[in-house]
Amino acid sequence: MKSGLPPAAGGRFAAAWSDLATLGRDRRRGGYSRHVFDDADMQLRDWFTAQALRRGLEVETDRNANLWAWWGEPGPGAVVTGSHLDSVPGGGAFDGPLGVVSALLAVDELRVRQVSPEKPMALVCFAEEEGGRFGLPCLGSRLMTGAAEADQVRRLHDGDGVSFVDAARRVGFDPAGIGREPDRVANIGAFVELHVEQGRLLHGADPNAAVGVGSQIVAHGRWRLTITGEGNHAGTTRAGDRHDLMVPAAAAVLAARRALGRHDGAVATIGRLQPVPGATNVIASSVEAWLDARHGTAADTAALVDEIVASVRAEAELEGCSVVLHRESLSDQVTFDPALTMELAALLDAPVVPTGAGHDAGILAASVPSTMLFVRNPTGVSHAPGEHAETADCLAGVDALADVLAELLG
Amino acid sequence: MKSGLPPAAGGRFAAAWSDLATLGRDRRRGGYSRHVFDDADMQLRDWFTAQALRRGLEVETDRNANLWAWWGEPGPGAVVTGSHLDSVPGGGAFDGPLGVVSALLAVDELRVRQVSPEKPMALVCFAEEEGGRFGLPCLGSRLMTGAAEADQVRRLHDGDGVSFVDAARRVGFDPAGIGREPDRVANIGAFVELHVEQGRLLHGADPNAAVGVGSQIVAHGRWRLTITGEGNHAGTTRAGDRHDLMVPAAAAVLAARRALGRHDGAVATIGRLQPVPGATNVIASSVEAWLDARHGTAADTAALVDEIVASVRAEAELEGCSVVLHRESLSDQVTFDPALTMELAALLDAPVVPTGAGHDAGILAASVPSTMLFVRNPTGVSHAPGEHAETADCLAGVDALADVLAELLG
Repeated sequence: MKSGLPPAAGGRFAAAWSDLATLGRDRRRGGYSRHVFDDADMQLRDWFTAQALRRGLEVETDRNANLWAWWGEPGPGAVVTGSHLDSVPGGGAFDGPLGVVSALLAVDELRVRQVSPEKPMALVCFAEEEGGRFGLPCLGSRLMTGAAEADQVRRLHDGDGVSFVDAARRVGFDPAGIGREPDRVANIGAFVELHVEQGRLLHGADPNAAVGVGSQIVAHGRWRLTITGEGNHAGTTRAGDRHDLMVPAAAAVLAARRALGRHDGAVATIGRLQPVPGATNVIASSVEAWLDARHGTAADTAALVDEIVASVRAEAELEGCSVVLHRESLSDQVTFDPALTMELAALLDAPVVPTGAGHDAGILAASVPSTMLFVRNPTGVSHAPGEHAETADCLAGVDALADVLAELLG
Repeated sequence: MKSGLPPAAGGRFAAAWSDLATLGRDRRRGGYSRHVFDDADMQLRDWFTAQALRRGLEVETDRNANLWAWWGEPGPGAVVTGSHLDSVPGGGAFDGPLGVVSALLAVDELRVRQVSPEKPMALVCFAEEEGGRFGLPCLGSRLMTGAAEADQVRRLHDGDGVSFVDAARRVGFDPAGIGREPDRVANIGAFVELHVEQGRLLHGADPNAAVGVGSQIVAHGRWRLTITGEGNHAGTTRAGDRHDLMVPAAAAVLAARRALGRHDGAVATIGRLQPVPGATNVIASSVEAWLDARHGTAADTAALVDEIVASVRAEAELEGCSVVLHRESLSDQVTFDPALTMELAALLDAPVVPTGAGHDAGILAASVPSTMLFVRNPTGVSHAPGEHAETADCLAGVDALADVLAELLG
């Protein structure tokens, strides 16, 4: 692992981190809540734009609300790096922004090294990677590559019932233009996304490695279970008269948990569950529960979900409740470009590790040579306020990204 | 059962019902959401005040935000009737308002009958009977009688973090003055609350009875379980690294459900459950679940809750999560004044039935002779938009209430 950024890079990293620390804080949940088209997102876009302009880059927003900063004229064979600025609700500081800040600092480092790119280069911030507002993760990269249909996205609503279309219009973004951008995708020669690791596989591969290279992403998807029973008085409704949907909802939580033990490498989680009306002295009349499942291939994941939902349906039938299952997304297993991955691993002398987390690089991988760099996460905690990476490791990540870009641009 | 209101009473009932139909509708949950000091509550208070003034009654708000309308000079031996105007979130139209509307129409009927009260009479609307905003049911009647301490109430917060004190001040109500009103309580000679039945015990007692008299309220209480685990990434956190509090939360739902079968007459329900941060791809870091439990005496109910919580703690320990239990309220079994109850049952030739629902009459019963009239509920559904009573039954309720008041005032 090489290192050795100039001391000024540490100062620029600290300054960027302190700029971002104030944007989109979630006082209720802790951490950050930054979602596409909200105030925090618009402030983060302004911040990125200012940072890119200060570095002499050309900034544009594409038709799918992804933000690009170009070094040199856009064109074929472009080397692209970046990540996303949005977060999960109550998320950590690193997931997304670390890849964006590292991209900006890598440009500085390339200039220190007096690298003159022979190819176009771009920094990108993909919109709504977490799907925290509209439920569809990697929304911007999916639209751009055609992995999501424009009509499907235009029909999405957030938790407050605001449509994607209205949310876009409120911030002056035209939702009529969203959809595939084949020319833009065709111009990407390689995409490398730097990201904080989510988990500790890197530690397992090499306890001394601050940076690793990504090999693959396990298949993952999101399902929404809507369970309907009969709302009634919690005090006066006898056992035989109850159609209490919280019983099958609880069965869903436990079935997901059991699936972890039953299938090697599978994970299934319910972390979002909303009973309606949600009052102490009321048997709920409906509930929505979101199931996040990840296991091997898309077929493995779908089979896992079928198994979980079968036990929910059995419980619902006993309780006289009905279950409707809606798939919000399902992404198959992605293997990053093997040649690119091996080239970078050799260049950086870094371990190669898979991940259970979805990323825009996983979406782009279907269309262009893509891979990822992971920066060590000492506890493995992510999607939570406690997510952390040491500054020395983040700077090692910038250094590694600069090495990678210099290699790919040469 | 007597009947025979003049046709105009039906018109006044329909007009009152149509006035109330528009106030506090909940578009998201269906039904009505009316909570102390919110817009709907203030509109309902204005409506009641106008109705009372139109009938020549003197209106006052007491120190605990309960609304009174006096027929004659306030003083000892007052005959009091009324109920509440607030609802559970997404509740029905009848729970509360039926008792208030019936009280107003009973005054009209007493005048038709040319009854001249020999005692003071009052109509009352108690504040926050459902506890839908601040979690403490019968807030207004508890404060007035000393069943809740003023300091305890001033420390309450609603789901948005707004304190009782701030919510009161926003609508110009002085929270400094809340607390016991012994003189006001001492002046009440009898309290009769008319209410839609919640359940179908009346039907069981006599399928032809439109109105019944209340005998007792089972003990009931509310507990809040706060379960803390470790927020983390739903995709990358392996089984052994998870501290997923949704597992013990699900155990709580199921333990409550099992308690219904295990103890005759006991009910226990979790209908409100809020995981934080509540995102699809995040293992939650904490969850609050509210447990509503009712069973025989206060000691029976507390023992039932202990049993449920023990199984939650066992599950939490396995998952490496912690559980904090907070009792929001616990009301012991209440037997309504036997002499008053028997007098009214004989007068109306009506069956006597208990209820599993809490009421302000249950709070007042500790201090003054109190009982209730229940109007038939054909499905038994309550605390839900589908709650219903036939208009003919509601008018029979008004007629019965007028009979009762005439008897008590004579």
